[in-house]
Formats: sequence, C-alpha cells, structure tokens
Amino acid sequence: MIKVGYPAIYAPVILSDFPADVELVPLPDTSDHAIDIDVWIPDPYSVKAIQLWPQLRGVKLVLCMMAGTEWIPGLVGPHVTICNARGAHNVSTAEWTVSAILGLLKHFPFYLQMQQEGVWKRRFESPARYAAITGDHRVLYPPVMLEELTGKKVLLVGHGSIGQEIERMLAPFRVQLTRVARTARNHPEVHAVSELDSLLPQAEIVILILPHTAESDKLIGASQLALMQQGALLVNAARGPIVDTDALVEALRSGRIRAALDVTDPEPLPAHHPLWSCPNLLLTPHVAGSTPQFAPRALQVAAKELAHYLQGEPLENAVQLAV
Amino acid sequence: MIKVGYPAIYAPVILSDFPADVELVPLPDTSDHAIDIDVWIPDPYSVKAIQLWPQLRGVKLVLCMMAGTEWIPGLVGPHVTICNARGAHNVSTAEWTVSAILGLLKHFPFYLQMQQEGVWKRRFESPARYAAITGDHRVLYPPVMLEELTGKKVLLVGHGSIGQEIERMLAPFRVQLTRVARTARNHPEVHAVSELDSLLPQAEIVILILPHTAESDKLIGASQLALMQQGALLVNAARGPIVDTDALVEALRSGRIRAALDVTDPEPLPAHHPLWSCPNLLLTPHVAGSTPQFAPRALQVAAKELAHYLQGEPLENAVQLAV
Repeated sequence: MIKVGYPAIYAPVILSDFPADVELVPLPDTSDHAIDIDVWIPDPYSVKAIQLWPQLRGVKLVLCMMAGTEWIPGLVGPHVTICNARGAHNVSTAEWTVSAILGLLKHFPFYLQMQQEGVWKRRFESPARYAAITGDHRVLYPPVMLEELTGKKVLLVGHGSIGQEIERMLAPFRVQLTRVARTARNHPEVHAVSELDSLLPQAEIVILILPHTAESDKLIGASQLALMQQGALLVNAARGPIVDTDALVEALRSGRIRAALDVTDPEPLPAHHPLWSCPNLLLTPHVAGSTPQFAPRALQVAAKELAHYLQGEPLENAVQLAV
Repeated sequence: MIKVGYPAIYAPVILSDFPADVELVPLPDTSDHAIDIDVWIPDPYSVKAIQLWPQLRGVKLVLCMMAGTEWIPGLVGPHVTICNARGAHNVSTAEWTVSAILGLLKHFPFYLQMQQEGVWKRRFESPARYAAITGDHRVLYPPVMLEELTGKKVLLVGHGSIGQEIERMLAPFRVQLTRVARTARNHPEVHAVSELDSLLPQAEIVILILPHTAESDKLIGASQLALMQQGALLVNAARGPIVDTDALVEALRSGRIRAALDVTDPEPLPAHHPLWSCPNLLLTPHVAGSTPQFAPRALQVAAKELAHYLQGEPLENAVQLAV
C-alpha cells in the first residue's frame, strides 16, 4: 500500500478527500529514526520540511501545499516528481487584493486613526479628484469623504489563476479592466507586458499579480511610477522584488501615488525601513494567502493529484518530473 | 419657461442631463430678495435649504437629492409635490458595506497598528475560529492570519435598493445569503423581520440596511446581540438608533461580537463616548454615501424626474403629492 506522509499537525478530518487505498503517515517535525514513505506532503514551513528530509526514505512524489516550490528540487534531487498546489491561494489572495483596494478608497487608515483619537471627523477628498469626476473645478462642495471603486480604470498585470479570480471579484464594481500578461492574447484581450509603459498612464489602479522571474524583477521602477497618474493606487499581491523599493518610497513620500503591499523587498521588512513611515500606504506582512481555508484547500489539490498518480494519469501541477 | 432652482455650488456641467426647455436658476445660500422658481432642488445640507426657503416663490415641485426628506413637508406645506433621489446612494453605501466587512475580516485595524509601530508581525487567529472552519481542534497550525468572506453565512436585514446592491456586490464571494425585510416575500426568498431572532444564531455576518421607523427602533437590542454567534460581525450602514448602543458597547467589550458602524446613536458621537474605545470595531462618521459620484448621480435622478413632470407622466420617487 502506498504510504503518504503528511504533517502531523493536520487533523485527519481535513485529509478526508484522500484516496481510501493509501496509508496516511503523520510526520513529526523531527525524527531520530528513518521513515519510509512513497509520497511526501512537506510542512508548508520549508525550514521544518528541510529539517525532516534526511530521515525520509523512498519518496517518489512530493505534493507541495504552496505555489512556490523553488526550494524543493535542490533538496530531493532529480529522481523525484514535484507538484505544487496551483489554485489553493486564489480566493484568499484575490480577496486580500479587493479588500486592500477598498480599504484605501474608503480611507480606512484615516478613519481608524480618528477612531483611536475618539474624534468624529470627516475627511474631505481633494478638489482635484472631485473635479476629475464631476468637471467642477470650483471650490470643493459638497464635502466628499470617500472614493468609489465602481467604474475605476484598473490595470491588472498578471492573468494567471489568481489574476482571473481578482477579475471575477471586481466584476460587480464594473471597473474598466485592462489585462497584461507575459504574452498578448485574445478572448479575453490581454496585452503583452512590453506594452506596460503605454498602459500605465491611463490606470487609476495598478494590480501586480504575476510571478517573480528574471524578466519581472523591478518591472515597476522609477520610470514606471512616474508614468502613473497623480493619486493612482499600486497594489502588489505578487512578490516584493517586482517593484523597485527605493523608487516606490520616493513616489510615496512625494505624494504622487498610493500603494497597498502584502509583499516587500526585503522581507521581512526590517525595523526603521523607510517604507514603514511612507504616507498613503497600506502594508500587511505577507499574509494575504493565509486563511483557515488554505490548508483544507491545498490538501484537496494534493488529494486530486494523488488520485491521478495512483491511476497513472497525467499530473495537473507537476513542476518537475522524475528522471 | 419652467424655472428650476439648484444650488449654485454645482457646476452647470453636472446638470447636463436636465431637459433643454427649462431655465436653470443657480440659487445662493442666502438672499435678501425673493426668487421665483417652479422647481426647487434644495441644498443637500438641509440647514442651508431651510434658511433660503422664505425667499422662494412659486415652488410646485421639490426634487430632493437625498433619500431622507423628513424635514421638507413641514417646511413647504401640503401644496407642493416632493420627490427624493431613490437609488443615488446605492453604489456608495453598498461599497462601504462590503469594504467594512472585508476590512475587518482581513484584520486591517491590527495590521495598520503594526505598520504605525513599524513591526513586521503576523496575527494568529484563535484556535477556536480555526477549529470551527476546519474541524481541527488541536493546537493551531499553520498560523492563520486573515479570514475569508467567501462562503460566509450573511444575514441581510433590509432588501430595498441599497440592500439589493449589497447582494449584487457580495455575489462573487459566494456567501450563503439570508434576506430579511418588513414583510416576507418570494423570488427571491425574503423572510419577515418577525423571524429575525430565529435567524440571528446562524449568521456569521449581520448587515443592517433598513429604514429607521418606529418598528425598527432598537431592533437589535441586548437579546438579539446575545443570539449572535461568538465572533460574528454586525454591520450597520442604516441608522444608529436601529441598534441599542448600550447593549452594543457591552457586547463589544465582552469580546462576544465584532462590529462595523457608519452610523451611531447619538450622532455625532461625542468625545469620550464608550464606543470609541470598544475592541473589534470599525467606526466611520456617517460618510458611507459621500463620494464624488453622489452629486452627479442624485442630479441625474432629479433630471429624470423633472422630465416626467414636464411630460405630465407619473413621478417615480414622489414622497408627497401636492393636494
């Protein structure tokens, strides 16, 4: 019987989708003796997984619960097949993206500050922004306290499974969406990333949800930030190094743009880093994907992949095939 | 030619939907002489409108930009028709509601605090909450930082035009929605408010978006709050007095429930009011409807109503017909 090792911290109840004809082997964080398994579901904390690996014997397939598997091939070598859990982060990361956009447009950072101070104080939106929408360039009136997402021009950079989920969640807000991915395609229309500079000036909201590769490293630098509209909102739900941090700090400090970041470069962001004190910024510490639903969802993906493996069917999310 | 008086603070450009065959008369805040108009669009600040009224002559129709017109009949008497701007607040108020829910589920108040302190610190969700979702009652692992809206059980109390807009914006999150209104109806299924107490225990999120009437006054009191689940979220985007403030303060302080309020009782909330320092609360100062799009949208509703009036057609949003 095929032995499937999984982190012992998961209750068997969230492994109920696993095929009945396998033996589930709960794995400890560390072991002083060798453990025989055929399939390995590593602890999502790679540090712990790496620690346990030397005691594992017989592993032919690794089912990783994360999307990123960059640390696994070097550890297990070329004779093991590796799959990731594509899709397991879609809902959580897309929800964070929409939440962060709405949180900034509704000026929650300002109102939470007023709440802390115990002051019933309304915020007046800038006359420039009011004028852009109403054509009224005279002194602002009536007072405008919040902004709307509805109808906004959104540039979605990255159109993989999370990007498509973001598009789905933005639909009721009737945003004017422009899509960008590595290569242009149709149905729906997606622009090539080479067109990015010509698309940035139109966007009121720019969402980054693309993989970090050599090509996307520092994709958003000083010149891209300079192409963005006054007051536009940059959202990074992808990876920190896709944005040039120094250039972003400068753009935020000057008041030119606003930003919401779940990822930074470096990460974790050290104490006293200039990003901490930048204005018009919402920063969360790489938590967008971490919800109670993540583990059950990732293990469901793993269960489906395991069923394919047992049936000898093609794997859906293989990132390395055993040689 | 019919004379339409409107607040002079609006640029003519946002009145472009008005029928061409009327004379638009910009109205000052105050006047030392009488002004002849047939149709009056009062300043949205009723204080200013009430101040100007004694100088207005010949008004037969009032087109109010707000949803609430309770101050107008007593001012203008029974021989004037009064219409409100039903629908003009739908998008803004529904957006605030979804934003407030997401902001709390993503724990932005906590992360904004960490950001202010310059600390890269993740929040660990309680094992109890994790257990309720995963069935895993053992020590929490992996750490869970955020919650998801997707799939949550939502009780929507009020199903008028704003309530329906909230339902539309919640759709991509596949919430399990239960609707409540004054009277039960079908297609879609709406429960009567008399069933509220039996529906509250199932809800993870309770949204209040119903008018404040004698019947809805203190609809949510101590016994209703006691019926809500541990950790459930109460959202009030309607009117402050629909909730018993003292009971809410107690429920929040005890940690039993969470809340997001755009309205309070009293309003404005005075300094040192106990609500200001309640935990698990997001409070904004009655700003949900105030966006740059509000005035153009309300004036569009007024323009449409005016066209009906000129054509002798039935009015859509009459709250008083001239006798």
